[in-house]
Amino acid sequence: MGAAQSFRDMCDRTKNTNVRFSLPAVCVVWQTAMIILFGVFIRYNEESDPHWVEHKKLKNISSDIENDFYFRYPSFQDVHVMIFVGFGFLMTFLKRYSFGGVGFNFLIAAFGLQWALLMQGWFHSLDYTDGKIKIGIENLINADFCVAGCLIAYGALLGKVSPVQLMVLTLFGITLFAVEEYIILNLIHARDAGGSMVIHTFGAYYGLSISWMLYRPNLDQSSRLQGSVYHSDVFATIGTLFLWMFWPSFNSAITDHGDGQHRAVINTYLALASTVLTTVAMSSLFQKHGKLDMVHVQNSTLAGGVAVGTAAEFMLMPYGSLIVGFCCGVISTLGYIYISPFLEKYMKVQDTCGVHNLHAMPGVIGGIVGAITAAAASESVYGHEGLVNTFDFEGAFEKMEPTTQGGHQAGGLCVALIFGIGGGMIVGAILRLPIWGDPADDNCFDDETYWEVPEDEESIPSVLQYNNHMRNKDIADTNFSMEPYPRTRS
Amino acid sequence: MGAAQSFRDMCDRTKNTNVRFSLPAVCVVWQTAMIILFGVFIRYNEESDPHWVEHKKLKNISSDIENDFYFRYPSFQDVHVMIFVGFGFLMTFLKRYSFGGVGFNFLIAAFGLQWALLMQGWFHSLDYTDGKIKIGIENLINADFCVAGCLIAYGALLGKVSPVQLMVLTLFGITLFAVEEYIILNLIHARDAGGSMVIHTFGAYYGLSISWMLYRPNLDQSSRLQGSVYHSDVFATIGTLFLWMFWPSFNSAITDHGDGQHRAVINTYLALASTVLTTVAMSSLFQKHGKLDMVHVQNSTLAGGVAVGTAAEFMLMPYGSLIVGFCCGVISTLGYIYISPFLEKYMKVQDTCGVHNLHAMPGVIGGIVGAITAAAASESVYGHEGLVNTFDFEGAFEKMEPTTQGGHQAGGLCVALIFGIGGGMIVGAILRLPIWGDPADDNCFDDETYWEVPEDEESIPSVLQYNNHMRNKDIADTNFSMEPYPRTRS
Amino acid sequence: MGAAQSFRDMCDRTKNTNVRFSLPAVCVVWQTAMIILFGVFIRYNEESDPHWVEHKKLKNISSDIENDFYFRYPSFQDVHVMIFVGFGFLMTFLKRYSFGGVGFNFLIAAFGLQWALLMQGWFHSLDYTDGKIKIGIENLINADFCVAGCLIAYGALLGKVSPVQLMVLTLFGITLFAVEEYIILNLIHARDAGGSMVIHTFGAYYGLSISWMLYRPNLDQSSRLQGSVYHSDVFATIGTLFLWMFWPSFNSAITDHGDGQHRAVINTYLALASTVLTTVAMSSLFQKHGKLDMVHVQNSTLAGGVAVGTAAEFMLMPYGSLIVGFCCGVISTLGYIYISPFLEKYMKVQDTCGVHNLHAMPGVIGGIVGAITAAAASESVYGHEGLVNTFDFEGAFEKMEPTTQGGHQAGGLCVALIFGIGGGMIVGAILRLPIWGDPADDNCFDDETYWEVPEDEESIPSVLQYNNHMRNKDIADTNFSMEPYPRTRS
Repeated sequence: MGAAQSFRDMCDRTKNTNVRFSLPAVCVVWQTAMIILFGVFIRYNEESDPHWVEHKKLKNISSDIENDFYFRYPSFQDVHVMIFVGFGFLMTFLKRYSFGGVGFNFLIAAFGLQWALLMQGWFHSLDYTDGKIKIGIENLINADFCVAGCLIAYGALLGKVSPVQLMVLTLFGITLFAVEEYIILNLIHARDAGGSMVIHTFGAYYGLSISWMLYRPNLDQSSRLQGSVYHSDVFATIGTLFLWMFWPSFNSAITDHGDGQHRAVINTYLALASTVLTTVAMSSLFQKHGKLDMVHVQNSTLAGGVAVGTAAEFMLMPYGSLIVGFCCGVISTLGYIYISPFLEKYMKVQDTCGVHNLHAMPGVIGGIVGAITAAAASESVYGHEGLVNTFDFEGAFEKMEPTTQGGHQAGGLCVALIFGIGGGMIVGAILRLPIWGDPADDNCFDDETYWEVPEDEESIPSVLQYNNHMRNKDIADTNFSMEPYPRTRS
Repeated sequence: MGAAQSFRDMCDRTKNTNVRFSLPAVCVVWQTAMIILFGVFIRYNEESDPHWVEHKKLKNISSDIENDFYFRYPSFQDVHVMIFVGFGFLMTFLKRYSFGGVGFNFLIAAFGLQWALLMQGWFHSLDYTDGKIKIGIENLINADFCVAGCLIAYGALLGKVSPVQLMVLTLFGITLFAVEEYIILNLIHARDAGGSMVIHTFGAYYGLSISWMLYRPNLDQSSRLQGSVYHSDVFATIGTLFLWMFWPSFNSAITDHGDGQHRAVINTYLALASTVLTTVAMSSLFQKHGKLDMVHVQNSTLAGGVAVGTAAEFMLMPYGSLIVGFCCGVISTLGYIYISPFLEKYMKVQDTCGVHNLHAMPGVIGGIVGAITAAAASESVYGHEGLVNTFDFEGAFEKMEPTTQGGHQAGGLCVALIFGIGGGMIVGAILRLPIWGDPADDNCFDDETYWEVPEDEESIPSVLQYNNHMRNKDIADTNFSMEPYPRTRS
Repeated sequence: MGAAQSFRDMCDRTKNTNVRFSLPAVCVVWQTAMIILFGVFIRYNEESDPHWVEHKKLKNISSDIENDFYFRYPSFQDVHVMIFVGFGFLMTFLKRYSFGGVGFNFLIAAFGLQWALLMQGWFHSLDYTDGKIKIGIENLINADFCVAGCLIAYGALLGKVSPVQLMVLTLFGITLFAVEEYIILNLIHARDAGGSMVIHTFGAYYGLSISWMLYRPNLDQSSRLQGSVYHSDVFATIGTLFLWMFWPSFNSAITDHGDGQHRAVINTYLALASTVLTTVAMSSLFQKHGKLDMVHVQNSTLAGGVAVGTAAEFMLMPYGSLIVGFCCGVISTLGYIYISPFLEKYMKVQDTCGVHNLHAMPGVIGGIVGAITAAAASESVYGHEGLVNTFDFEGAFEKMEPTTQGGHQAGGLCVALIFGIGGGMIVGAILRLPIWGDPADDNCFDDETYWEVPEDEESIPSVLQYNNHMRNKDIADTNFSMEPYPRTRS
């Protein structure tokens, strides 16, 4: 950490948060690069191409409803909502960083999904006959998944980084994700339908490592803004609920047709329900006067969904899902109460949204649950064909045993951890360069830094101080006409 | 009512709203009970089990797309959104009870759906060969439906009960629901796809009866909080719209594959559209200066969806749906204007959300419309097979006539009313015990009671009183640094 | 414009915004008319009728899953969310017009979809054997589409018209839409899956022409209200995101089963992602200090979805979609910065939501892109059957060439423009009659005009002025008890 510290000192100069050149440059150049790469590489696959009519005849497919689109589109849209509204609004809880929370989430997801289509495409959907990546609905889902990893990382950094840094974080994050995913799913042959390891463990440790590299000892200079107000907490609840409700779609979106998707939905639905009760219990128990804390209800209630991500398609059994949810609600809530302050004070990890409690710990638990459930699989429970289908014991892995599969699952978890922590430290070092326009310590968590913010109710007192005897209507008039930036859309 | 009154007096003691022991205890113990019961009873059904591959061959099913999952999952997710975002946000309208509205809704729905899977499972999905309940997507939908009944009841009690009381209300509510549902659907053989009787009539009268038992003569001590502010009304509109938009999914979620689901959607879509116009008309007509009232627009616009719940799968005809919606918009809005004040003043029923206008009256109308539509059914309209499919004239009911079916429908409505009112009175008596941590009369509708609430804009005046001459920025600083509870997630 | 001016002067009298008679009358009478017309004309089609069982046998349909319902219902629900939450919340951005934004959107959509079912039904779904309109899920989607045109027009007029005017606008708008759509799709045989021409171009110019006819030279008297506050901007973002996320469903909702829907989703998904980056780039580049403007992020990010509306089902290619999105993000954002002020100052078009930038320009671009893509179509890319299916080269158009189709597409765009501008001027003239209860110039953008608005935080200062030494709690009490209109639901 000595080296990191000296590197930090080197980079600590007066901050310039003007991104008027860098942000447009990054957006336009990278978007242009996307267009060129898409032009060279990306084509429709046989299910989204007009030759589908011929493909149907060739493969003796009787109906258009057999197009994968109809198996996966509803799940895709749910995942899409989780990415943009779920993650976005979950990050609106700060009193003056709602624009940044939902807006930068929007920006990096929109960029990330394009880059993910390319990166994942090269690894998974490359047609070697013509060197093109052939995309369909499953690629869109996977791109959204890939983006989720970067959004989780953003959660740890919320309010402390510039949009340019976030674009860099996303570029590298997607790249690392695609490599890590290829190693875990294809080389190691671990299964990870809902991405406990691939998405959550990786994403959370990626973000936490970056946050550690970007440690701000004087962040308390922004403490006045590091909390919520009543309505920002209600906004954040929108994010929570859309994540919570659609998590069954997340964990089932790319599982096998038929029983695979069906079972993943049931397991996730149950795990999440269980988590809510233990989250509420812990929140009340560890708070003076037994009052509930919105932070816990907004976040820890989701931990069960993370933790059944790997095992959701396995025979986790309904009661198994409830147990996983039960434990994660407890652990995640206690994490917010005890572990987060510890991490900040002693480990120098500032984790704005508490992704360590919501994604990192539950993700690791999910990987372990997956390994155990896989190792315990048997033909008596799954049936022969069921076992082969569920664990994909085909091709080179035809003779694989469930116990071996359990070991491979554990191996996958290690890879996710290594990529997350290692990748985060490297990218964190890059993001410490003093060229990215990040805010000063007393300027964090403040939308004023990167957004035109409308004047607000808070300006009312500033009027009052001059004249306390105006009638109410006059006050309103004066107040509104004082706006320095007359916002209009016409 | 004399007995009820004396019982009330017995229970009226000084209130202790600290739920630090009782709430965690209830959550942990009940969740543990769920895990044990799920372990003993709940298994995957043949469509969510890995043996699906073999099941397919056995039943000669040609494609995975025939799995019930693909017929019902989109509707399930819509219903899920209605339960958590729809009901939850509809209850955020109070100026200082948004946390409790959406948060306790979340808690009791998460508990309720687990208990509902068990209770409904024992009645409807028990496999007698092995004594296990076999669950699939339809069970999840029905569990959500079952929860809806309890959430409607919560609407009548919003702001006046403790979370522990709500858990008790839910435990008994789900139990009563499952019994009532079994009697109405299986024993009486009434049809009730959208639950006008089973869900809405039962749930509303259950809640209203409890509210009558818990009558607070001095509730006006909280009247300062019994209203909305501008933005809380906008939040509530989110709930309204998601309920309104997804109601076609609610009414069609468990109807017959094919034309059954298709027709239920059309009927509900039309009834809801019609309701909006008459709600707006009545709201404007009965208000001075013709100004619209958000309370009506948020609630009465949904009455049409409730009232076509039973008949949505029948041949109600498009114009019939419009007529039902027309009437319910009128009745529901007039209910808010005239009947709710009457109920509170003369019947001692305090109905915070007006569930009498949104669920009780439209639910009863829905039951009657269902009975009439069923009685009027004929082979000339439905076709022979259509009639059999729609009304399930099979097995013991093979020779049933539509007119008889109409009578059975009416019988079902009576059962729902009896269970709602009777069950509510019993559960209300239990909830009057002075052990549940409910708030005092001057403490209702206030999130401070059960939640850690962040300091807010409202603290600005408290600063101003000491010094009206600070500059605006100073005010903001002082204000934020005054926060007694430094909320942070890191 | 001289005639228009004199007409304006004729209509400029003292304003009476009381709609207590007119609004209920319009709602009740028109809803009654709908019931009668539905009774005479509207019936279920063969897929939503109980005779579906027989229809299946007759047509040798093997499974209920072949019912069009299962191909289109998920898309329908997404479109439904766009209409009510998407458009509705996008219009909540004004500081004191959120009720009107989301509430009137709700009203006119609920009326419009009924009238659209009739108007579009007569043109497209009339069964000539019995003179009835037979409706199914596709009719519901088309009705929602039709409504979208009127909601776009509302965007230009937001805050400046009465609900009665909006009902009139909708009545005529739907009528014009249905005629225009019939000419473009059936007579000219242009394709327009996502409605770039039919919906967006028509709707935007319809609204802009009305706005021109209703020009208010003294609108700056309401300028104090013509902006956002912090939380109203966050509410508007809900609208933005639900439009953005579900736009792929919008553009694919009525395209061909199979590859048609699949491809339309991919193209729209990509175009929208690309738009976000260039919107952010332009917003930052043309703002002092490089700060982002929420107006752009809320609106221009959607332009790509509009502009691929026509070509989404064609072989636009993934990189083609990205290019279209790239250009529209730039053009739309620059439109907000440069063109809107120009239009207001020199063309006398006051466009509250900037629909010229979000719908008009991107819609025209979409029409042009569609024409070019159609003209460039070839059998080598589409395959023979693919070409026939995609462009519907059947019946009278069997021998049509792609190049000719391109010309027809351009013709369709002209028709949309003519109907939008011409229809808007006529309807605008009608709406200038001094009988509709529209607000005075100093009363625009204010919910007080048509809604009962709850007292709010803003009333706090009015208390303070009398006594600055009250304790905080007293202030709150006094404040709340001052409410002139005690809002309660019980």
